Amino acid sequence: MHPLFEKHRSTLDGALDAIRTRGFWSAYPEMPSPKIYGESANDEGKAAALGHAGRQFELDQPGRIGWLASEHSPYGIPLEVEYPVCEPQALIDAALAAMPAWQKLGVEGRTGICLEALSRINKRSFEIAHAVMVTTGQGWMMAFQAGGPHAQDRGLEAVAYAYREMSSVPSTARWEKPQGKNPPVVMEKRFEIVGRGVALVIGCGTFPTWNTYPGLFAALVTGNPVIVKAHPNAVLPAAISVKILRDVLAESGIDPNLVSLAVVADPKATRALATHPAVRSVDFTGSNSFGNWLTENARQAQVYAELAGVNNVVIESTDKYRSMLKNLAFTLSLYSGQMCTTTQDIFVPADGIDTDEGHKSFDEVAADLGSAVEKLLSDAVVATAVLGSIQSPETLKRIEEAPALAAQPSDIVLASRKLDHAEFPAANVHTPLLMKTDAANEAAYMQERFGPISFIVKVADATAAVALSEQIVRERGALTVGLYSTKQEVIDAMTEATMRAGVALSINLLSNVYVNQSAAFSDYHATGANPAANASYTDSAFVANRFRVIQRRWHV
Amino acid sequence: MHPLFEKHRSTLDGALDAIRTRGFWSAYPEMPSPKIYGESANDEGKAAALGHAGRQFELDQPGRIGWLASEHSPYGIPLEVEYPVCEPQALIDAALAAMPAWQKLGVEGRTGICLEALSRINKRSFEIAHAVMVTTGQGWMMAFQAGGPHAQDRGLEAVAYAYREMSSVPSTARWEKPQGKNPPVVMEKRFEIVGRGVALVIGCGTFPTWNTYPGLFAALVTGNPVIVKAHPNAVLPAAISVKILRDVLAESGIDPNLVSLAVVADPKATRALATHPAVRSVDFTGSNSFGNWLTENARQAQVYAELAGVNNVVIESTDKYRSMLKNLAFTLSLYSGQMCTTTQDIFVPADGIDTDEGHKSFDEVAADLGSAVEKLLSDAVVATAVLGSIQSPETLKRIEEAPALAAQPSDIVLASRKLDHAEFPAANVHTPLLMKTDAANEAAYMQERFGPISFIVKVADATAAVALSEQIVRERGALTVGLYSTKQEVIDAMTEATMRAGVALSINLLSNVYVNQSAAFSDYHATGANPAANASYTDSAFVANRFRVIQRRWHV
Repeated sequence: MHPLFEKHRSTLDGALDAIRTRGFWSAYPEMPSPKIYGESANDEGKAAALGHAGRQFELDQPGRIGWLASEHSPYGIPLEVEYPVCEPQALIDAALAAMPAWQKLGVEGRTGICLEALSRINKRSFEIAHAVMVTTGQGWMMAFQAGGPHAQDRGLEAVAYAYREMSSVPSTARWEKPQGKNPPVVMEKRFEIVGRGVALVIGCGTFPTWNTYPGLFAALVTGNPVIVKAHPNAVLPAAISVKILRDVLAESGIDPNLVSLAVVADPKATRALATHPAVRSVDFTGSNSFGNWLTENARQAQVYAELAGVNNVVIESTDKYRSMLKNLAFTLSLYSGQMCTTTQDIFVPADGIDTDEGHKSFDEVAADLGSAVEKLLSDAVVATAVLGSIQSPETLKRIEEAPALAAQPSDIVLASRKLDHAEFPAANVHTPLLMKTDAANEAAYMQERFGPISFIVKVADATAAVALSEQIVRERGALTVGLYSTKQEVIDAMTEATMRAGVALSINLLSNVYVNQSAAFSDYHATGANPAANASYTDSAFVANRFRVIQRRWHV
Repeated sequence: MHPLFEKHRSTLDGALDAIRTRGFWSAYPEMPSPKIYGESANDEGKAAALGHAGRQFELDQPGRIGWLASEHSPYGIPLEVEYPVCEPQALIDAALAAMPAWQKLGVEGRTGICLEALSRINKRSFEIAHAVMVTTGQGWMMAFQAGGPHAQDRGLEAVAYAYREMSSVPSTARWEKPQGKNPPVVMEKRFEIVGRGVALVIGCGTFPTWNTYPGLFAALVTGNPVIVKAHPNAVLPAAISVKILRDVLAESGIDPNLVSLAVVADPKATRALATHPAVRSVDFTGSNSFGNWLTENARQAQVYAELAGVNNVVIESTDKYRSMLKNLAFTLSLYSGQMCTTTQDIFVPADGIDTDEGHKSFDEVAADLGSAVEKLLSDAVVATAVLGSIQSPETLKRIEEAPALAAQPSDIVLASRKLDHAEFPAANVHTPLLMKTDAANEAAYMQERFGPISFIVKVADATAAVALSEQIVRERGALTVGLYSTKQEVIDAMTEATMRAGVALSINLLSNVYVNQSAAFSDYHATGANPAANASYTDSAFVANRFRVIQRRWHV
């Protein structure tokens, strides 16, 4: 047994049990507690993350032709980290050269090394979290949790699924076919698990670890070399992760070029990489336009794509009106809606809704939700911590232009305000923009408007709301859908609609669980059944086609 | 528990155990023995199969716009079975309408119904085998085994893999997240398995059940309606199978239009079906040209394709010369090489090979193999039983034209002869054509020449043979590769080459096991890792992406 497999066996067993039951489980503590991570962990991690600024991030990769600094911190923190730009062909050649030994290591060896890497990444959670924070604009706590332990859990989840699939293939078999009174025909068989070829993992600018680790570890553990193409504005978290992986590989006697970082100056280079004949899988999180381009063009590869959608919530009735508003207000505010899971459309019947505080008209619901957001963000410290900073100029532009979508000024329930950040004066902190609209105004709310822009959509009634939700999921895709209703028949109708349309449903969320949050080992992130994604974190389909079985047989 | 699941539980358990160990196992007896299938089974089955001739095959499907008889028996047996031609849109609408109830039945219900259908198909093995024989030109024994029990085993194997994957998803979970001293956050979760949409299964003309059942049952059991588009010349075996499925479904209270037969007069209609937005998976066995067309065009669907390749065998040395020749002679002769697994190229070093009968020159090996084929086919009864009849005019044409590929007349080791068939005077029985060629003559042997056409290729040495084999698998694809060698280093080199190229390897096959045969539950048919196929019978990847998991959650 490989020593690293033995070392991490109990973690793997926990993960295997968790994916079997999909209850609560986590391998990596989500609280940035000094008791767990060490008294000096935060200071050291922050210093390490910021210590990369203005320096060359040395990875010792082949084919280096230059250095590139492409990151601009949404907090205005000077970064200027220079990453090695390498010839794509050199990275691919080196990846392919490293592949046979990685394959030969076998399932347990590869699993052990991946688990060791995850454990090392976990120990560097503070450094990675600060790197996530400064590059993405996330608030600190979110950067730590989603960028650190939660991302690590997602990586481990992928390793567990892959291990389960690979270990369900026997490595040997004896085939004894009875021949009546004659002796049986006996054959020995061997089954080898082989990777498909180079895996390209393309990261996004908002969740550079959470959305990268699943594909990275799924491809790696199944026997493939991996090239991580980080988002130009969120390279540092990926670079640190790749460096840790390369170190663990080298220490285990594996050529570190098995895992490399691709930094490209020109988007054309990404396209060339994705369509390279040696690249056999592409994991991508990002825009529909590039995701669809990949599906159309990277035909030599399996493409696992997490794209955009129009997430929505139906409010039909509630017996906890204040809690519901509070819950939704947090969802709309968290990281200024820069999550692929943030609710964009909230469907409310024109006649209003029944609540524990009496009947509320459509306009009252809208106004009360606006007030709940305002109340949540009334404390500047809380507000900046929850909102973080806007990551991209495109999102800033959308915030600026969105009010024009309102049919009349009074439809703006809540205008987006720019807030000052006490610690980072250059940060772009913007509160959510909330507007009312009629269901007929499809141009406004039926396309994704990534960022803190949401619509309270007036629909005829609950039936129309459920139908509209289903239509949007089918046509535009969605990662999350929510429902507030006290009526079983409405819950049943919404359940049926989400099963037909293929989207996860959260029912009557009130406290500490939000529709935009997805817990590793329990919640499947994306279904792969609607246009927002063709794969899920994590199920068997996410891992099973990343390797193939090659057999040989002979007579005994 | 669904009564049909309970009824067939032990069969399923046997299959689940078999796919875990991949030793010998079979659920359906392969011997057409009266003791097993009943004294009158053969007569009744034959009468039933031929009784369809000249009649309308009633399936009671929606949207019928006519009847079509498209089959011409390679044995010259009059068929003229008329099948219903239905509006594709009507079949799709009916399929989608039947889908929700099928989904609601759940994993055990769907599995039970599929197992019952397989069991009924098994009981009709003689009828289906005669239908396979008369439509494909296979000899009787092969038609019975490959078209009956072996095909049923492949169908069951797919059901077992799908059941294993589906049942590894829990249907419920309770998520309890500790909150320090506070009570935990508790959520209830439900996970529903849903199909992807309409599955199209496109059959081939030579193995209308063996290559159809895996995709058909994999798609069906995972919650999808299935439209079986049979090959125009081998509709009857598919029609009988579809009829049995429709009967079982109706008896179980499921709309039988969940499974239907598509008979089309125009290939354009197949293309329209394959690219229909409601069709979410396509299983296809057949030509590279249509397979590649599907991958290029049926972008809305997952395509599982088994295409053509250039199967090959390397002969380096042997300590059982006669047995080797006998084994290869049978492989080249069986069903006149009309198998996707038949060896086309045999690589022999220019200097000849060492054997237990002394050194044999290249020419001696070629001549001795020719003699072995002649000896096998010297008895007319054996010959017609082994060879069967040529299925398609294209194959007849290839046999006719192939001798022109020889650089000189003396390169023809064995000319193809037309034999008379005692029972069926109109049968096209042709013995294998065997020719020598130099490795430089790539145009001759490096493309697939489906049918009884094989090349003994003169290569520099064993190293060149292994390299050429690997090159052909990489560039042209292959389902099978064989090796004869007494030297461990050659076996190791070939093992490495086949692992790199991604193809199954049979080493020193001598008795009763042939390189072109693949046993359900033990041998993976195709690897999915080279151009000959993008999927395998059967592994997890063949089933895991045919369903998705839709979750819902709520506070407790």
